[in-house]
Amino acid sequence: MAQHSVLFEDHAEPVTVRAGTLLVEAARRAGIEIRQPCGGQGRCGRCAVRVVGGRVRRRSILRLSEEDVAAGYALACQAVVEEDVSVVVPPADQIERRLSTDHVAPEVTVPRGYAREQSQTVERALLRLAPPSMDDQTDDWARLRTALRIQNGIDHLRASLEQIRALGGILRASEWQVGLTYDTAGEPTGSARLIAIGPGAAIAADPLVGLAIDIGTTTVTVLLADLDSGEVLSRAATYNEQITRGEDVISRIIYASSGDGSDELKGLVLETINRLIATVCSKAGIGPGAVVKATVGGNSTMMHLLMGIAAESIRLEPFITSINAPPLLTAREIGFTMCPDGTVDLLPGVASYMGADITAGVLASGLRSSEETTLFIDIGTNGEMVLGSSQWLVSCACSAGPAFEGSGVVHGMRADRGAIEEVWIDGRSFEPTLRVIGEGRPRGICGSGLISLVAEMFITGILDKGGHIDETLDTPRIRRGSHGVEYVVARRDEAADGKDVSITAVDIDNLLRAKAAVYAGFNVLADRVGVDLASVDRVLIGGAFGKYINVEKAVDIGLLPDLAWDRFDFLGNTSVKGAYLSLLDRAAREEVADIASSMTYIELSADNSFYEAFTSAMFLPHTDLSRFPSVEASVT
Amino acid sequence: MAQHSVLFEDHAEPVTVRAGTLLVEAARRAGIEIRQPCGGQGRCGRCAVRVVGGRVRRRSILRLSEEDVAAGYALACQAVVEEDVSVVVPPADQIERRLSTDHVAPEVTVPRGYAREQSQTVERALLRLAPPSMDDQTDDWARLRTALRIQNGIDHLRASLEQIRALGGILRASEWQVGLTYDTAGEPTGSARLIAIGPGAAIAADPLVGLAIDIGTTTVTVLLADLDSGEVLSRAATYNEQITRGEDVISRIIYASSGDGSDELKGLVLETINRLIATVCSKAGIGPGAVVKATVGGNSTMMHLLMGIAAESIRLEPFITSINAPPLLTAREIGFTMCPDGTVDLLPGVASYMGADITAGVLASGLRSSEETTLFIDIGTNGEMVLGSSQWLVSCACSAGPAFEGSGVVHGMRADRGAIEEVWIDGRSFEPTLRVIGEGRPRGICGSGLISLVAEMFITGILDKGGHIDETLDTPRIRRGSHGVEYVVARRDEAADGKDVSITAVDIDNLLRAKAAVYAGFNVLADRVGVDLASVDRVLIGGAFGKYINVEKAVDIGLLPDLAWDRFDFLGNTSVKGAYLSLLDRAAREEVADIASSMTYIELSADNSFYEAFTSAMFLPHTDLSRFPSVEASVT
Repeated sequence: MAQHSVLFEDHAEPVTVRAGTLLVEAARRAGIEIRQPCGGQGRCGRCAVRVVGGRVRRRSILRLSEEDVAAGYALACQAVVEEDVSVVVPPADQIERRLSTDHVAPEVTVPRGYAREQSQTVERALLRLAPPSMDDQTDDWARLRTALRIQNGIDHLRASLEQIRALGGILRASEWQVGLTYDTAGEPTGSARLIAIGPGAAIAADPLVGLAIDIGTTTVTVLLADLDSGEVLSRAATYNEQITRGEDVISRIIYASSGDGSDELKGLVLETINRLIATVCSKAGIGPGAVVKATVGGNSTMMHLLMGIAAESIRLEPFITSINAPPLLTAREIGFTMCPDGTVDLLPGVASYMGADITAGVLASGLRSSEETTLFIDIGTNGEMVLGSSQWLVSCACSAGPAFEGSGVVHGMRADRGAIEEVWIDGRSFEPTLRVIGEGRPRGICGSGLISLVAEMFITGILDKGGHIDETLDTPRIRRGSHGVEYVVARRDEAADGKDVSITAVDIDNLLRAKAAVYAGFNVLADRVGVDLASVDRVLIGGAFGKYINVEKAVDIGLLPDLAWDRFDFLGNTSVKGAYLSLLDRAAREEVADIASSMTYIELSADNSFYEAFTSAMFLPHTDLSRFPSVEASVT
Repeated sequence: MAQHSVLFEDHAEPVTVRAGTLLVEAARRAGIEIRQPCGGQGRCGRCAVRVVGGRVRRRSILRLSEEDVAAGYALACQAVVEEDVSVVVPPADQIERRLSTDHVAPEVTVPRGYAREQSQTVERALLRLAPPSMDDQTDDWARLRTALRIQNGIDHLRASLEQIRALGGILRASEWQVGLTYDTAGEPTGSARLIAIGPGAAIAADPLVGLAIDIGTTTVTVLLADLDSGEVLSRAATYNEQITRGEDVISRIIYASSGDGSDELKGLVLETINRLIATVCSKAGIGPGAVVKATVGGNSTMMHLLMGIAAESIRLEPFITSINAPPLLTAREIGFTMCPDGTVDLLPGVASYMGADITAGVLASGLRSSEETTLFIDIGTNGEMVLGSSQWLVSCACSAGPAFEGSGVVHGMRADRGAIEEVWIDGRSFEPTLRVIGEGRPRGICGSGLISLVAEMFITGILDKGGHIDETLDTPRIRRGSHGVEYVVARRDEAADGKDVSITAVDIDNLLRAKAAVYAGFNVLADRVGVDLASVDRVLIGGAFGKYINVEKAVDIGLLPDLAWDRFDFLGNTSVKGAYLSLLDRAAREEVADIASSMTYIELSADNSFYEAFTSAMFLPHTDLSRFPSVEASVT
């Protein structure tokens, strides 16, 4: 078969590939990761590269304009090499692996009155065993268990064959004075599972530490906590390495379901987690072998991929998980680089799109400790929402699409340097004022910027109730571009890359769909329990989304219900906070299980009232203006 | 370093080895296994080979006479190659791997009234699950568990991560009709551990089978049992492959404690067991994957070596095992080639020299179901003995040495073709009449032959009470040889190999020590509980030893107590029978645990009364003739 060379700009050496190879694969061989938010399906257009020498065959030009194609642009996931080519990978499209501002692990507070002995499941015993003699020929294992029973009240200790193998040597080397670490979690009363055993003195000197981990689709966060004091010793966060194989859960599932995709994704998230474990341990000056427990939050897809379980059924109707409440595992089984027999507790989820990130989040939000009617939301590509109080919980999830994460919009981008995060528009000149992350020139619009922009466009009359741009307005910022009518937020002379940053009619429609889905979800929940959305006492917002969002603007477009500002609260990464609380406190862990089992989950795609509510919410802010009295006041 | 060639007779090609290599290692490279009953310690003399060309350096000539050395004999484990040599390995000393008459697995009887549902722990469920739908989004794992709870009353099912990984695929491929096999053994009430899951129809067609295994130091025995009917479908036995690395447990422990010895011995016994599993499955026309449980008896050293646990502490004072009652394991963990998640139940032992072969044996003997005072004995290299009734159990073990197994005696051999197994001596001519296994000419004397021979020599006056040969008797069969005074049992013209078969003063002393140790053990047990040995109601003899022994002769030499013949019973391989009963019946398995925990074990080396009893028993039949009235009658 014919071979062709592919030269990437900034790479001295071309790579040689067979005819028929995709550009994305050629790039990988050259050591360049081109991001594929849609999982290489040619849907998102984010892997566009520019072919500057030679020609490629384009299997699809979806998301590319005629001008783009004329300029040599091609989707790397759809471009087939059939001759020698030279390619430029636009820098904005290379995955940036540096820790961005997104990746700051949250501050957490030690629960009030925390005391390890009372609330924690991992225990330690220092045993001075009587050495065996001709008069006391008890076997090593029984000798250990008897001492543990007498001293610590553990009647039954479970151990693996590997642990039993090592026992005799350890007991003799330590002259019968040993330290034990064991976990009572998941065991009947009076029973425990052995985590580690070693010479008494060494074990006594070791700190007793555990991890709280949140596996987000985008970001993985790890906290290292001292189980004695409850204090967080160090924290770290970074991109989930899986992101190079698809930006959202659906893309990941598709990637996992072909070839070695499942093993590859499992390996990537393990790499991510293990690097973070090394980081937090190194920061705290602790060896990873001293980490005896890890409690993990994350959505159902992330949990399945971590366990190496096929996730295809999550994606396909009727959207079924293989397992919502995994059994307790060991670090050895799951692949974490910590104490090999340390416990790994994957928190329980509820459904395919209502995972352990939300059950942990509900715990961390404190929703259940109040009789107030509370709405807990976590919005990203999927919007998950829980309405409830101490007595009841009802939940649903909607596909918001990538709009809120700055994707799926022509000039969308992550909330990263150069992203427009807030917009103000002059009601007469229609000229915008921008706030840009990093304070340089704008490169694109992130999720919060998009909400802000559309709200401003609506309030200033650039958009009507239906979301249509008023082409009759007298401003050069409104024009017809290759994607139809658009509003230019930053002209090329104002922008970082020398290219216009604009928002198109299609983008606005995407955002409307996203916000309508979320709002319709609220509606369905409220209707199901007979609560008026206006009477919700508190709205608690978890996840990265809440960090930058301007509540007023979100209400203006009809994304959030029209409530007084003081009823909203931003909680940050509630998944890792919930994992942290569950790590420290047996009662908190039991509450997560209780949240998971008592939560009513409504599958919206099987709910007729959702479609009605969605259609009504496809307006700015809503067909029923009386639901948004504050917005009504500002536009009339 | 210099290289030398070593040529073994019957091998066309010499092997080339470095100077300093031991002959036994050179032989191994040539594909010849030379047995090392003492574990290569130069103690047993059984690895003697004849150097017919060139010379070797002899590190030790223990067990070799001057004549032997002159004739070129050397101990292969002690002979260092320092020049090119040619070697003859005497055929009698090559390990014979064929199934000898020893290796017949015993017949067992299905327990009366056996019914799987009532007594067995492995259960099977055929579940027709409702497929998931938009209205029923229960996860796969919960769906399975709920159905199992409703249909079979199992509230809690444990599974490994591997099993959970496979679950979604199996459920969908089988269209939600699955068969489950699970084990309730060792789980709290209402709980079980998943063994296997598969398409409903296939599972229903599979027979439900398990294994009973006895790992003897010499012989491994496997029975394949139908768990539904209790019937034994097939049986097989063979040498324990470990035998090439030492004939007794002490030699094995020494071998295991250096280099890769432990891994090697574990591998060898697994090879043996897995070959037997393949054999019994093939005989019954069943795939090994259908074997869902294995229950295993064996002495404590065999159990430790199988689990890969260091056994050194078993050998050294104060003689401590690492574990007497191992937890339930899976075939995957232990290395058996059967259903990978099938249960492997290693039965519990009591002490280093009171293993699961004896607890299983006591179960199989029925000792506990009678109020009669019963002595249960299993004699090989070690003699294990249990005195008890339904109410109490007291036990001890003595080192009998290899005499009863036909080793450690100049012309001793296994109970194999050519072995003298019974002797009658004419009281006037002192001429012997022999019974030889296989009915050919004799090659040596096996254990039962030795007992018979010494008893006859005593009864006919060749031996006095002290075991000394009367040199004044007028017969050419009594003479002085290179090992002192001896009695020629078979002259070279009567023997198979053209060499005299004789018994020496040293041999007789060895046998006296062996029988005195066993009888002193009986004494200690009886004294401990205040029972007169003469009042013992039954003597139950387990193991291969009982197969050929003549009780009268054993009483004559003072090995067995002087009781009426009808009080003796030979039970054969009680270890595998006990394993079989424990496999089939939960109550039997619990009884083994109860036997292990309630048995009082007396460590003889810490017992002063043992030495006294031993010294008194170093006579024929005993210093106190009144203990042996029947013998007293025949010699006076």
